[in-house]
Amino acid sequence: MAKEIERKFLVTNTSFISKAESSTNIRQAYISTNPDSTVRLRIKDSQAYMTVKGRNNGAERDEWEFSIPYSDACEMARKLCGGFSIDKTRYIVDHEGWKWEIDVFHGRHEGLIVAEIELPSAECQPPLPKFIGKEVTGDARYYNSMLSLNAGIPV
Amino acid sequence: MAKEIERKFLVTNTSFISKAESSTNIRQAYISTNPDSTVRLRIKDSQAYMTVKGRNNGAERDEWEFSIPYSDACEMARKLCGGFSIDKTRYIVDHEGWKWEIDVFHGRHEGLIVAEIELPSAECQPPLPKFIGKEVTGDARYYNSMLSLNAGIPV
Repeated sequence: MAKEIERKFLVTNTSFISKAESSTNIRQAYISTNPDSTVRLRIKDSQAYMTVKGRNNGAERDEWEFSIPYSDACEMARKLCGGFSIDKTRYIVDHEGWKWEIDVFHGRHEGLIVAEIELPSAECQPPLPKFIGKEVTGDARYYNSMLSLNAGIPV
Repeated sequence: MAKEIERKFLVTNTSFISKAESSTNIRQAYISTNPDSTVRLRIKDSQAYMTVKGRNNGAERDEWEFSIPYSDACEMARKLCGGFSIDKTRYIVDHEGWKWEIDVFHGRHEGLIVAEIELPSAECQPPLPKFIGKEVTGDARYYNSMLSLNAGIPV
């Protein structure tokens, strides 16, 4: 088990793209969107994963991730989830030594950009880049599992 | 993906135990009990698995199974499911060349005995041993996922 401690923010502009170290295409589908025990399928480039997450406890969340065959992930997404409902590009951006993961959503969630930063402890206060907007840590509307249920950007 | 085609029956007595080829202890917990996409943790002797199943279509059901670390299975069961809610001994019994899997439940479901037979096609008519009682194929009350939610035997 990994314990994720992370904060999540909306992003106000795309100035980060030119500074990104890398970008990855990610598609996700949800076998369970229950916030107590979310089960996610993820395709990251050509690698497939099944990930189980527990309920958020502030910025902390238990997480278990398993590599699975690509064909199984695609089959489960198609047969159980109506396809991959999340499609995004993840940029990795360094800001004063801190790594930000910034997700630019496509398709049904075009226009949504969300930044996450993983922290060694919940008390850490990383410096916030200028493109960072409102904090949405723990706001269930911005869970990818919740986004997967609806098109558009939460209001 | 495997496609399971199987029939399920209640068992009326324990005469099969003396004829069993093998017996295995199985514990199960459910991350999702949604019949459209069930997610099961299973410990079978010292091996752990995560299994995803689709909805029953008559005697058929899609199934994907992945080996996972034993410690992850125990942790997820404890943290997400309130422990292993299904505890049973599985006996394998040969009857006229057909393999029956017979589950004798313990603990909260003591007294329940269920036999399953996997078929090469839904049209097969295997000979039924004398200990076989009422057929419960497709009866959701006898899904292990549903049993996991309640103590006792369905009435």
